[in-house]
Amino acid sequence: MAIDYAVIRYTLDFYLNDWLEIGRLCERPRFADHGPETFAGVLDLCERLAAERFEPFNRLADTEEPHFDGAHVSLPAATEQACRAYAESGMLAAAQDADIGGMQLPCTVEMAANSFFSAASIGIRAYSMLTVANANLLMAHGSEQQRRVFAHPQFEGRWYGTMNLSEPQAGSSLSDIATRAEPDGAGYESDPLGPRYRINGRKMWISGGEHAMGENIVHLVLAKIPDAEGRLPAGTKGISLFIVPKFKVDAAGRLTGERNDVALAGLNHKLGYRGTVNTLLNYGEGGGAVGYRIGDAGLGLTYMFHMMNEARIQVGLGAAMLGMAGYLESREYAFQRSQGRPIQPGRSAAKNPTQQPVLIEQHPDVRRMLVAQRAYSEGAMALCLLCSRLVDEERTGMGDAALEAKALLEVLTPIAKSWPSEWCVEANSLAIQVLGGYGYTRDFPVEQHWRDNRLNMIHEGTHGIQAMDLLGRKVVMDNGGPFRLLLQRMRGSVAAASELARMQPLADELGRVLLRLEHATARAWASGSAPEALANATAYLRAFGHVVMGWIWLDVARAAVQAESSGRRSSGFVEGKVAAARYFVLHELPLVEAWLRPVEQCDRLWLDLPVEAV
Amino acid sequence: MAIDYAVIRYTLDFYLNDWLEIGRLCERPRFADHGPETFAGVLDLCERLAAERFEPFNRLADTEEPHFDGAHVSLPAATEQACRAYAESGMLAAAQDADIGGMQLPCTVEMAANSFFSAASIGIRAYSMLTVANANLLMAHGSEQQRRVFAHPQFEGRWYGTMNLSEPQAGSSLSDIATRAEPDGAGYESDPLGPRYRINGRKMWISGGEHAMGENIVHLVLAKIPDAEGRLPAGTKGISLFIVPKFKVDAAGRLTGERNDVALAGLNHKLGYRGTVNTLLNYGEGGGAVGYRIGDAGLGLTYMFHMMNEARIQVGLGAAMLGMAGYLESREYAFQRSQGRPIQPGRSAAKNPTQQPVLIEQHPDVRRMLVAQRAYSEGAMALCLLCSRLVDEERTGMGDAALEAKALLEVLTPIAKSWPSEWCVEANSLAIQVLGGYGYTRDFPVEQHWRDNRLNMIHEGTHGIQAMDLLGRKVVMDNGGPFRLLLQRMRGSVAAASELARMQPLADELGRVLLRLEHATARAWASGSAPEALANATAYLRAFGHVVMGWIWLDVARAAVQAESSGRRSSGFVEGKVAAARYFVLHELPLVEAWLRPVEQCDRLWLDLPVEAV
Repeated sequence: MAIDYAVIRYTLDFYLNDWLEIGRLCERPRFADHGPETFAGVLDLCERLAAERFEPFNRLADTEEPHFDGAHVSLPAATEQACRAYAESGMLAAAQDADIGGMQLPCTVEMAANSFFSAASIGIRAYSMLTVANANLLMAHGSEQQRRVFAHPQFEGRWYGTMNLSEPQAGSSLSDIATRAEPDGAGYESDPLGPRYRINGRKMWISGGEHAMGENIVHLVLAKIPDAEGRLPAGTKGISLFIVPKFKVDAAGRLTGERNDVALAGLNHKLGYRGTVNTLLNYGEGGGAVGYRIGDAGLGLTYMFHMMNEARIQVGLGAAMLGMAGYLESREYAFQRSQGRPIQPGRSAAKNPTQQPVLIEQHPDVRRMLVAQRAYSEGAMALCLLCSRLVDEERTGMGDAALEAKALLEVLTPIAKSWPSEWCVEANSLAIQVLGGYGYTRDFPVEQHWRDNRLNMIHEGTHGIQAMDLLGRKVVMDNGGPFRLLLQRMRGSVAAASELARMQPLADELGRVLLRLEHATARAWASGSAPEALANATAYLRAFGHVVMGWIWLDVARAAVQAESSGRRSSGFVEGKVAAARYFVLHELPLVEAWLRPVEQCDRLWLDLPVEAV
Repeated sequence: MAIDYAVIRYTLDFYLNDWLEIGRLCERPRFADHGPETFAGVLDLCERLAAERFEPFNRLADTEEPHFDGAHVSLPAATEQACRAYAESGMLAAAQDADIGGMQLPCTVEMAANSFFSAASIGIRAYSMLTVANANLLMAHGSEQQRRVFAHPQFEGRWYGTMNLSEPQAGSSLSDIATRAEPDGAGYESDPLGPRYRINGRKMWISGGEHAMGENIVHLVLAKIPDAEGRLPAGTKGISLFIVPKFKVDAAGRLTGERNDVALAGLNHKLGYRGTVNTLLNYGEGGGAVGYRIGDAGLGLTYMFHMMNEARIQVGLGAAMLGMAGYLESREYAFQRSQGRPIQPGRSAAKNPTQQPVLIEQHPDVRRMLVAQRAYSEGAMALCLLCSRLVDEERTGMGDAALEAKALLEVLTPIAKSWPSEWCVEANSLAIQVLGGYGYTRDFPVEQHWRDNRLNMIHEGTHGIQAMDLLGRKVVMDNGGPFRLLLQRMRGSVAAASELARMQPLADELGRVLLRLEHATARAWASGSAPEALANATAYLRAFGHVVMGWIWLDVARAAVQAESSGRRSSGFVEGKVAAARYFVLHELPLVEAWLRPVEQCDRLWLDLPVEAV
């Protein structure tokens, strides 16, 4: 059982070319050297690398969990080989400027190309994702010296990177971090690598926090600088961001041979995602780790969140690709496994036992489970690629288009993070169900996808945090402007789809729930007070997510039907898209109204609950 | 982190005494020797055994998976010790007649008492459950000699039992089993242990199929007897049932020292439920395993399904108890872990960073996740206990009451199997979410519950099979009589709850969806033809399950409110029940209408889907 990458590939091709029209990006100066051939070349390369160097070792990365012998953390050799192959492909610098060796690819193409690796082995993939996120942050906010010394070696694949936000007592509440950064002597501000501090504290859930791959690990660490009395500032405004290399470097970035004062305190043994080493790190067991401040004191979280929005889209796309992996594997199974017979016409629900068993894909309920997986996974892919297209627009678009892209991203990012994380776990559960008892064994890959995918509702901002972000900030920011813009875009899609006869019933359905969503949003904030408004934020997030996904499917199916009529896509391809859209819009979208009920009614159940009733 | 069994205990006490009024069973001759004290004594005993002998080894049973060294299957010593302690408690014969050493307990009390073990370690618990199911089947359908030789040693805990239904090519489609049973010589019909056959074939997914606990393993094996030309009869009507002991016995049941021709072909390595060894067995590698036919040829599946209905209720209750375990553990965590602060009144959704962090149970979304877990798990418990109460009524009730119980059980059994299996996995996912990153590690028990619970939608009839059973058979059987009886009972609960002011809005909501369910059922069958009727059977099952659970919660909350006004339950206890009922009926029951839409519209999506679109 293996993933059929050709399906992923033609799905990507359709999204990128027919739906998102990325060819038009090549008209912009930054992407002028690119064209359909270079984009296709990148996708070809990544498809091949994922199939050859990642997927064959995905189970191994799960069973041979990272191991700490007291001195070193060991990973399977295949993990290091896969990471090296990835580095050699140049993908670490996919989005960077050509003059530092980058490919200057649009974010959309970079995300699409990387999606193969997430499908193949999300646990191995994480190392490069973290490294690029780290280096991108340094490129955006570091000094020139910091970029050269700490970011460039990561783009070259010589060093690895991590993000250090959480602490054992502070996960979702970063304002409570207790890691201290104290100026390192009188001349601390004149270090060429940036203002030099000593870091003391403990950082939890650090993926890639310790291993022997590469020559160094660059930790980006949130910490607080104490005031004159030694007190840490309260709240998130007191947080700064520091570069803490595992091995110390000189001003030119050469390794000094000395280890920095950051030590592995323990490995976390997880339910899934086991290919990625996850650690508790102790900073300052020997007096304080040397760290270099990035930018201004107190802006650490702002810098981190610059990276976080893109990271959240990547989490969503990773969840989508795990969903795709399970979909494609269970589909392969359903077209190979014979069992059962069709029900005979008539009242008795009888079957003809003398008939040969049929392929299970012929059973209506198996079809439901396959199409639902497709609706969740391909829909999630489309949403995340749309968001990455908006990132490109924000960065390289002109005037209003860039501003609108930014506004849409504000509202869509919590959905791009949370919706795939929730529903592609459900897709993976359906993949298990299609395989039945076999799906429940470790002889097949689908149970691992389900375990791996369960992380995505937790890291990079939990589901509950996304819900508060959406209803508490995003739909009300700028007097509701970004939210209204999204509604306007969705209504535009309703209008466009209404012109195609096949799409009309779906367009009507989406139009109907859009009104409900708009109404519920106003009702939620009717009291004007956040505790009441946010009491049912998670139900709102779920409803909002389904509305967005209904829009995505309506628009994707519309584009597919138009691509068919212009001869660019086969009828089989288009029928698959239309079936998924019909399933999603007609079978799932009606759930929105149920989820919105407590929001519309400003239900106070959670606010008024006596503590004994919890 | 440990399960708070006291909560399970007072929940059981409420359900058994206040809601199901099991005290009235003691008026019946079979239970005349029992009373509140003996029932309480059994619950006390099982609560203690579960806490002391099962729960402490639940993780061990997961990590030290059954191992086959080529000669023997080894299990952790703790598993054997727990099973021995269970046998010594007398619970294996809990429901048996006193004259063979049984306790003559009602099914309701037996199920309630056993629920502690499912919460504590479902993987260890499975051995005794299978053994009792096996022996119960023998008591119902075996000859006197078969009962004495094969069932009694199982009640005494000396032998273990298994159920052999599936084969590698035939899981849900038992009509396709290929295991052959051929008469063992000319005098095969005169063996005192029953008509003697030689069994050849392979049986898959056999839990408890091989291990070294006890002196023998009694396999109950479905097989087909070939006709004169050696052909196996088609369909399920050709299936017979055989007793195949692992070690051969003489007519008096003494071990002959000879091994029967049944061999372990391999262990299945599962996602969860790892405490229970699961096997592929080969029958007849050396010419044919000796098997003794039970009852008449061709009635094997009927005999098996006699046991299956009770087994399905037990699967549901097991799922419920895994849900309870996760609920209680995540609740304990939420009352110990401080993080975050309340949102301040006003538009800004701001928090006061100088305030101390609060217990996470105070956050509305954490409360939602706890109350949802309670609604799923305690609701599932109540449903399964109600079904076991109906089993008692069917067996020991008088006249119409017994017939009505039987009719209600027909309709409710697929719900009791499927609803807890689906929603208590969701409960376990919420438990993980409450713990956040910690919940995703194997240092906490909640991830194991989630893995263990995922089996329940697969074994003992998959979700899809339950859906076909419900809509294809149960709601239409006897001209819809059992279904109408259930509707009538539910309307009775609506009327009773309507008399309490607090319950009125919930009663109205249930009344409303009952009409929709009745309408959708008629619409589904409007064509009069099963393929169309069953095209959306799983959506119907899901809707039906939620309606039943809305009814359960309405009635449980009504009973709680009445128990409070009569001074029998504290206000805190009652508020918990009312909150769960409010959550379920007002936040979840509206989903029913969305799920019923494709049923009401007789949506042909799955029937008309072109194969390229799957």
